[in-house]
Amino acid sequence: MKRVTTFSEARQVLAARVGLVATMGYLHEGHLSLMQRAKGVCDTLVASIFVNPLQFAPGEDFENYPRDIERDAALMASVGVDVLFSPSIEEMYPAEPSIRIVTSPLGDRLEGEGRPRHFDGVAMAVVKLFAGLRPDVAVFGRKDAQQLAIVRRLVRDLSFPVEIMGAPITRESDGLALSSRNVRLSDSERTAALALHSGLVAAASLVEAGERDGSVLEKVAATPIEAEPLLELHYAELTDAAELTRLPKLSSDAFLAVSAQAGSVRLIDNFHIIGGLPEIGIRLDHPSIVYQGGQ
Amino acid sequence: MKRVTTFSEARQVLAARVGLVATMGYLHEGHLSLMQRAKGVCDTLVASIFVNPLQFAPGEDFENYPRDIERDAALMASVGVDVLFSPSIEEMYPAEPSIRIVTSPLGDRLEGEGRPRHFDGVAMAVVKLFAGLRPDVAVFGRKDAQQLAIVRRLVRDLSFPVEIMGAPITRESDGLALSSRNVRLSDSERTAALALHSGLVAAASLVEAGERDGSVLEKVAATPIEAEPLLELHYAELTDAAELTRLPKLSSDAFLAVSAQAGSVRLIDNFHIIGGLPEIGIRLDHPSIVYQGGQ
Repeated sequence: MKRVTTFSEARQVLAARVGLVATMGYLHEGHLSLMQRAKGVCDTLVASIFVNPLQFAPGEDFENYPRDIERDAALMASVGVDVLFSPSIEEMYPAEPSIRIVTSPLGDRLEGEGRPRHFDGVAMAVVKLFAGLRPDVAVFGRKDAQQLAIVRRLVRDLSFPVEIMGAPITRESDGLALSSRNVRLSDSERTAALALHSGLVAAASLVEAGERDGSVLEKVAATPIEAEPLLELHYAELTDAAELTRLPKLSSDAFLAVSAQAGSVRLIDNFHIIGGLPEIGIRLDHPSIVYQGGQ
Repeated sequence: MKRVTTFSEARQVLAARVGLVATMGYLHEGHLSLMQRAKGVCDTLVASIFVNPLQFAPGEDFENYPRDIERDAALMASVGVDVLFSPSIEEMYPAEPSIRIVTSPLGDRLEGEGRPRHFDGVAMAVVKLFAGLRPDVAVFGRKDAQQLAIVRRLVRDLSFPVEIMGAPITRESDGLALSSRNVRLSDSERTAALALHSGLVAAASLVEAGERDGSVLEKVAATPIEAEPLLELHYAELTDAAELTRLPKLSSDAFLAVSAQAGSVRLIDNFHIIGGLPEIGIRLDHPSIVYQGGQ
């Protein structure tokens, strides 16, 4: 695996059909599953690590975001990444940008309500990676459902010739969605956090049973979170996967997203409707099975 | 010369080092001089024609902007353009964009004061051409000085690996800067419009004589415009060519820009300081000479 830190070097070592997986590092099995998927659809796989200051608000955890690039590099090599791109802040932002990407109104809803301009920062980093690395295909996880929708829109609106592939959420064996921030959960918060998965599984069972009313599904997903004293519910919302608007009735391109605070950690989780069924995701104990519907 | 209308077709016929000249069509010798310059620094030259609705405000001349694609295609072929890219509105904007490019504050000054969000629209089209065509080098005229500065900033801020080359202004033999909109000037407006060039030449003579005071140069450039009853001065301003801020003293990276209204036509003109001297540009009667300083 080659390691490069400038866009120029990266382009020199990339050839043929280029795949990209963009990360902020501190990799877990979820990231690795994206890389494995990307590996199957490209000739040269570049994976990036960049903790992007523009997507953190003042007071958020930019400084404390977990980092371990040597461990990340070894993990990337183990799944066949060809090029690790880890730009410096100076390579990404040689000066304060004057030209900005604005994602409003898509970026204002859901996570954007609690994190103003977060998605403008995400979009800026994604545009730079697409412009500077010129990938042909990029794989993004469905866990960051709003990010995935915004990246799809960005590719359409800015004419980037990049195929965007979504990939299932990877979960611990007990159902907790993997996140680099989970290391900061206390034991009791870790247990409480399972309520996000429980609510989604209950809502997914209802969908399988034919329920299509958005408010009913949202209420079922929210109930276990609201019952947990260590969690504060941000939202539970049935959402159009392209327009990011609230859906009164389930559609074929939708996700049910939940978000809650556990101490200093903001937790998100969701299921997308894939092929007509709720996709709960992959579990580490059975990584070859994609669970759909209430388990 | 190949003619294509979709980004996907265009990429298939582009190879090696790709040069781009982006236009709104209705070509004049100024456009052709950009293409000739680009031809010398690339292997495949693509020139685009797209009258971009996003850079016209309501009430501006989007509908009436002059168009003649068959004449343009013949002119392009005559200067060695390899690929003419003329996308439809649907190819460029399959839907109203949600993701926007914002150029403020660079786009708010000078032309932006009279044309709010004009440069956001320009930047959107340029981003799409850079993303979709993946050029290695692009040539822009120095006549649109603010556009050139914003495109340079856009490339830096969004990490596009595109070399941006500026090229001298092309002028009629009497000094009028070429513009597709000049066809809409009446005979008397056409004569009045020469005041922009006269003022710039007078200011350039002062620069050659050692004058560096911004207000003095601006006043000298403005005087002939203000003396013309058929013209209304928008501004005469000594400007930092990178930051687009007003300069109290001449610097080595600056332009002196003037803008005036002649009936329905907005006229702009300027000289840049190139290699320490004011660059007036090329005249059609002596196209191989770049005039510098007061003529």
